[in-house]
Amino acid sequence: MNASTLGTSVPQVNARSKVLGRAQYAGDIKLAGMLHGKVLRSPHPHARIVRIDATPALALPGVKAVVTGADGPQVPWGVHHKERLTLARDVVRFAGEEVAAVAATSEETARDALDLIEVEYEELPALLTPEQALEPQASRIHPGRDDNIAHQIRFERGDVDAAFARAHLVHEATYTTHSQYPGYMEPMASVAAIDADGRLQVWTSTQSAFLVRARLAAVLELPVSRVRVIQATTGGGFGGKIIEDANSLIAGLLALRTGKPVRLVNNRLEDFLACATSVPEHITLKLGMDREGCILAKDVRIVADCGAYSGLSAEVMHVSAMRSDNMHRNGNVRSHATLVYTHTPPHGAFRGFGGTQMLFALNSQIDAMARQLDLDPLDVHRRNAIERGATSVHGWKIGSTGLVECLAQCADAIGWSTRRSRNAVHGAKRRGLGLAAAMHVSGNRTIGDWDGSTVMLKINEDGRVVLHSSEADMGQGAMTMLSQVVAHELDIPLEHVHVVAPDTDSSPWCIGSLASRVTMAAGNAAILAARAARGKLLDQAASMLQLPAEALKCAGGAVCVADAPQRSLTLAELARAHLWRHGGEGIQVSGSWDARTDMFDKTTLMGNIAPAYSFAAQAVEVEVDTETGQVTLVDSFVSDDCGKALNPQAVHGQSNGAAAQAIGWTLYEQLQLDAGRIVNGNFADYTMPSPDALPMLRSGIVESNDPNGPYGAKGASETAILPGPAAIANAVFDAVGVRIRDLPITPEKVLAALRRREESRHA
Amino acid sequence: MNASTLGTSVPQVNARSKVLGRAQYAGDIKLAGMLHGKVLRSPHPHARIVRIDATPALALPGVKAVVTGADGPQVPWGVHHKERLTLARDVVRFAGEEVAAVAATSEETARDALDLIEVEYEELPALLTPEQALEPQASRIHPGRDDNIAHQIRFERGDVDAAFARAHLVHEATYTTHSQYPGYMEPMASVAAIDADGRLQVWTSTQSAFLVRARLAAVLELPVSRVRVIQATTGGGFGGKIIEDANSLIAGLLALRTGKPVRLVNNRLEDFLACATSVPEHITLKLGMDREGCILAKDVRIVADCGAYSGLSAEVMHVSAMRSDNMHRNGNVRSHATLVYTHTPPHGAFRGFGGTQMLFALNSQIDAMARQLDLDPLDVHRRNAIERGATSVHGWKIGSTGLVECLAQCADAIGWSTRRSRNAVHGAKRRGLGLAAAMHVSGNRTIGDWDGSTVMLKINEDGRVVLHSSEADMGQGAMTMLSQVVAHELDIPLEHVHVVAPDTDSSPWCIGSLASRVTMAAGNAAILAARAARGKLLDQAASMLQLPAEALKCAGGAVCVADAPQRSLTLAELARAHLWRHGGEGIQVSGSWDARTDMFDKTTLMGNIAPAYSFAAQAVEVEVDTETGQVTLVDSFVSDDCGKALNPQAVHGQSNGAAAQAIGWTLYEQLQLDAGRIVNGNFADYTMPSPDALPMLRSGIVESNDPNGPYGAKGASETAILPGPAAIANAVFDAVGVRIRDLPITPEKVLAALRRREESRHA
Repeated sequence: MNASTLGTSVPQVNARSKVLGRAQYAGDIKLAGMLHGKVLRSPHPHARIVRIDATPALALPGVKAVVTGADGPQVPWGVHHKERLTLARDVVRFAGEEVAAVAATSEETARDALDLIEVEYEELPALLTPEQALEPQASRIHPGRDDNIAHQIRFERGDVDAAFARAHLVHEATYTTHSQYPGYMEPMASVAAIDADGRLQVWTSTQSAFLVRARLAAVLELPVSRVRVIQATTGGGFGGKIIEDANSLIAGLLALRTGKPVRLVNNRLEDFLACATSVPEHITLKLGMDREGCILAKDVRIVADCGAYSGLSAEVMHVSAMRSDNMHRNGNVRSHATLVYTHTPPHGAFRGFGGTQMLFALNSQIDAMARQLDLDPLDVHRRNAIERGATSVHGWKIGSTGLVECLAQCADAIGWSTRRSRNAVHGAKRRGLGLAAAMHVSGNRTIGDWDGSTVMLKINEDGRVVLHSSEADMGQGAMTMLSQVVAHELDIPLEHVHVVAPDTDSSPWCIGSLASRVTMAAGNAAILAARAARGKLLDQAASMLQLPAEALKCAGGAVCVADAPQRSLTLAELARAHLWRHGGEGIQVSGSWDARTDMFDKTTLMGNIAPAYSFAAQAVEVEVDTETGQVTLVDSFVSDDCGKALNPQAVHGQSNGAAAQAIGWTLYEQLQLDAGRIVNGNFADYTMPSPDALPMLRSGIVESNDPNGPYGAKGASETAILPGPAAIANAVFDAVGVRIRDLPITPEKVLAALRRREESRHA
Repeated sequence: MNASTLGTSVPQVNARSKVLGRAQYAGDIKLAGMLHGKVLRSPHPHARIVRIDATPALALPGVKAVVTGADGPQVPWGVHHKERLTLARDVVRFAGEEVAAVAATSEETARDALDLIEVEYEELPALLTPEQALEPQASRIHPGRDDNIAHQIRFERGDVDAAFARAHLVHEATYTTHSQYPGYMEPMASVAAIDADGRLQVWTSTQSAFLVRARLAAVLELPVSRVRVIQATTGGGFGGKIIEDANSLIAGLLALRTGKPVRLVNNRLEDFLACATSVPEHITLKLGMDREGCILAKDVRIVADCGAYSGLSAEVMHVSAMRSDNMHRNGNVRSHATLVYTHTPPHGAFRGFGGTQMLFALNSQIDAMARQLDLDPLDVHRRNAIERGATSVHGWKIGSTGLVECLAQCADAIGWSTRRSRNAVHGAKRRGLGLAAAMHVSGNRTIGDWDGSTVMLKINEDGRVVLHSSEADMGQGAMTMLSQVVAHELDIPLEHVHVVAPDTDSSPWCIGSLASRVTMAAGNAAILAARAARGKLLDQAASMLQLPAEALKCAGGAVCVADAPQRSLTLAELARAHLWRHGGEGIQVSGSWDARTDMFDKTTLMGNIAPAYSFAAQAVEVEVDTETGQVTLVDSFVSDDCGKALNPQAVHGQSNGAAAQAIGWTLYEQLQLDAGRIVNGNFADYTMPSPDALPMLRSGIVESNDPNGPYGAKGASETAILPGPAAIANAVFDAVGVRIRDLPITPEKVLAALRRREESRHA
């Protein structure tokens, strides 16, 4: 028997629990005496809080606590800047900002209590766009700052101006990207309680139990050891559940204030108001190419809007400003990115983490310039693609790349060479093909000069394994990946590995699921842990069989003599024998792995921040209705270089999910604000693509076998969200000759562009 | 600052949670959709189950499951013999045996459902005493056995007959000991649920989470990895919560059958019926002494009653048969012990574990013989006491003994030399002094050739420690002891150590809290774990301070330079630095310790089974009312040789609690059976000593500094339950000249003995 499932498609190990309804999401948790929390939010994008009177709310029977900014935590939170209070004090800076929190005996009572909190606001002028906020006379959104700039990035490598000067073609254009709601099925939810020892215990839907613990401790002014965070089953994250919302903070606050368990579950509107949506960016991109389409110089100016609080937006913009440079050979790059506060709901981390915005611009521009140079954009991508072994312009060491293979796979799948620019016509409908390329990281050292992970394993007396990690499974498959790795190393069935959900009391310290780091960091740690366990098993068997450990191997749930496999001891026998003996102990081991990467230099921003880089490409076919402007996706093929697909089905699932989310952002989803207020915070009006809006999504895998990856694997499929928007825009151009640079590509914009093109033709 | 509390009195670290009502006992746990279990018990000591009809019960609205022996688990449980079904099938063997179990939506409905289960019994003759059961024509209580003997022990060392032949005084007498209910404040309670992965998860009041898991897995036919056991706060155990009741099994069974959480909490009567009470023994003891009171030979015959199922009674009887031999120098010992099944409620483990029974006989006999030899019993004890460094008659290596010091301390405290046999008279009341000695183990290898423990530590970013062990705190102070050890080794405040309750998923494998093994095994493991953590902290500081680790030390929550203490890094700084660096990881270490002891030889029963042996003595003063026969304890001083008192207050608390329990057994408590049925299963009729029945209990500590113990410590105060009964009986003799050999010492027995003595005087 070889039990390994590595490289084969297996269902997620936690799929059954979800399908059967047994999985415990935070909203499923009921504790004795549990209260329900609700949050009062500002209706105004900018206002002074003149007065809050909670007395009428507190008088409502069943209301146990009302907390306002005045008596709430005074320690601000945030990643780049600690600037956001759990509950606003004196001033509200966006419509939706948390102003008061209620705990009551029922959700209905809590909701009713919100209506009884009297808040007197003095409305103030709101700065709703970066342009307004950047005006010299604009008021300061945050006191004590010189301007409304949250963060700036500037760098130049090579000699950009000289390179532009010698370029055959220089093209500059401005692209506008909008904000996307993460759209996870499970809204933010937490249950907080005071444990027997008076510690704060929080079950929450999160991508990182330890980051949540750190923030709870800091803001609620508790030592981290007085806080325990357990990841409840998490129904999607997409970056929005890293550390960008106040849900767990408010639940924790209310539990501390009442001494009772408190459940705080966002409904969908609350979640729209509370979460960080992706960072909208205006990107002015200038590229210079030689005749063959080789990029000689790149200059980019970004103005990004973080909303009222900067959260992770600075890091997101950093990615927009730099990451895509590393997929090309070009050494002349310049970037100036400015993150601006506005009186709008905060933005932040989102699947793709700033890559999506820049790659929309870059891939659109490459397509446009290739056309100007009469080159096949596919060739231009290939020609510019960085090669394995290269060090990129920012010092990134490309240990593996399957970008060219991804491009080829997409081109083949979509019929690029034979079907491009044929403009098939069906009445008023035109078809076209588009293509784009992307890269992403697999890990990121810059969080704190550590990008490691620890996995702890116990082998039970039945020879099965319990695995502790605090890298979160939020649906992407971390638990399955870890199970596969350990089952492979020990040659036991996948079901014989049980992965325990992250719990800061018992799980090893991990950063969590972000930056596509889990397969890389935790996968490698799991290999080390499993091999440490195997070492103990082999040593135990060696002493029982009176043979050197080198003569033995793990096979089929047992350790056997390599030359005489019938001589074997089951892992169960070995685990028991390891315990019940002189000097015995249960088999319990851990493995830690840290990427051999570099923290970037703070002034030069140079440094190999990730142990591996993932690549992807996507080709799509669209049909554009020239009468309505409607763009319909007819076909899509996304190809992901995940290094090695440990679970191809999971990679395809993630790739197709990413593609769908990219399609939604490009064609359908649009967060609509009216005077700073979200007006479509529900799934009826915020139109994520339903199945009938999508073609049968197709995906492919490229295995570039990264030298640092576990079995060659890299982070899978976050890259797959990146190329879609430009591929669609390029296909629209291919179909009808208009280039939409302002997302989303709505029928109105297409029609208007078609009209302008007609007018210019007739002019 | 030296933060160590070692050797000083500190409140239990979990006292606050209990006082505040925050501690979660199993009965406090509420889960969504939770059902309530109830158990139908046999009213007959012996009967054939002719028919069970659960249909009417199942028809009651709210009843979700009724399980009977026929469709219940078919795998029997038990320690020495696997012979007891979770629910009786075909035959019931004691009044109280589990016949059916119900799960319903409320406790009331479950209780009502019990009345609706129709059971037709055919009553069979019951064998209610060992004498009846041992008669040759007695029916077999368990099928397939040759007789009703559950276990026998026979051994002889030295030349017992020759030694008796040369003895100056040979005395033989028979002693009768009765059964004691453990009387913990919290009855047995469990909550069982099916977790998201379909695994069985059980919170239970237990002394050993891992033994409970093993039994659940075996009986319910699940791999151990499919079972998770978490120790709920446990309100006392006293041996009764090791593994002797079916509470967790039935809760687990009902959860599996219903798929719902099920809570099963015994009320007090149910607990009396369900639990194992201590093993009643008839002990016929023959001792030979020389003129100076040196014991030359010992012969003992024990007939012990295990009730209907043997449970841990064989192990208990083993202790009765052997252990007290090891406290004396005498090398001529013979034992024949027979454990007999009867149709009565099962007996088993109880604080003192068989020592109490035998030490009542032995200490009574020594007192009687000392008087016959006109010697001071204190001198006789001293003269016979085994010395440090000796190997006892059974091969036990006495690394430390404070027995002589314990005796001296008691004698001093009670005024032995000046007040003994003075027979102070107050009207009809006579006073007298009595004294007794005892020994116990600190650990026991015989459970499975391992007597180890593993402690796992994590150091959080605030420099505080999380400790994982699965040795249970059931009120005796394991959590506090572990906290003290770690706080001492790292020189941090006690409150900076958080001990996590045992959880088989995350805690290391441990045997649990029995055989006074936890301070020895887990204390030593905690030292090793803390030193491993300290090593990591010192290494981290060494690299940061550019000094050799040998130049550094842990002090006051920091690592400082030994020669320049002002140069220091806090543990918080070090923990963060250990994580956030190249090759970093959270500080997580474990330490395992296993006693260097021997499994006894199965034929000779020789072997040094424990790493250390504890000793104790007790002196009491009683007042006997010669008109009523009432014995009142006037004073009591128990002295415990715990090696080293890590927490003197805790040792005193345990010693005094043990003394109270011994006093209860000796004077007040009596489990009353009528035709095999417990008739006083409540705290009104089962009269545990209330405070007004006890004098101000006094206790002393002797620190013999065992070479194997953590800082010299041994298991504390289980020994302290052992000497009390004989000390009281001896004091009664001292007061009024009658010797009660049949416990409890009731007024009726005293009066009858006084009458007999009067009659014999006048005869």
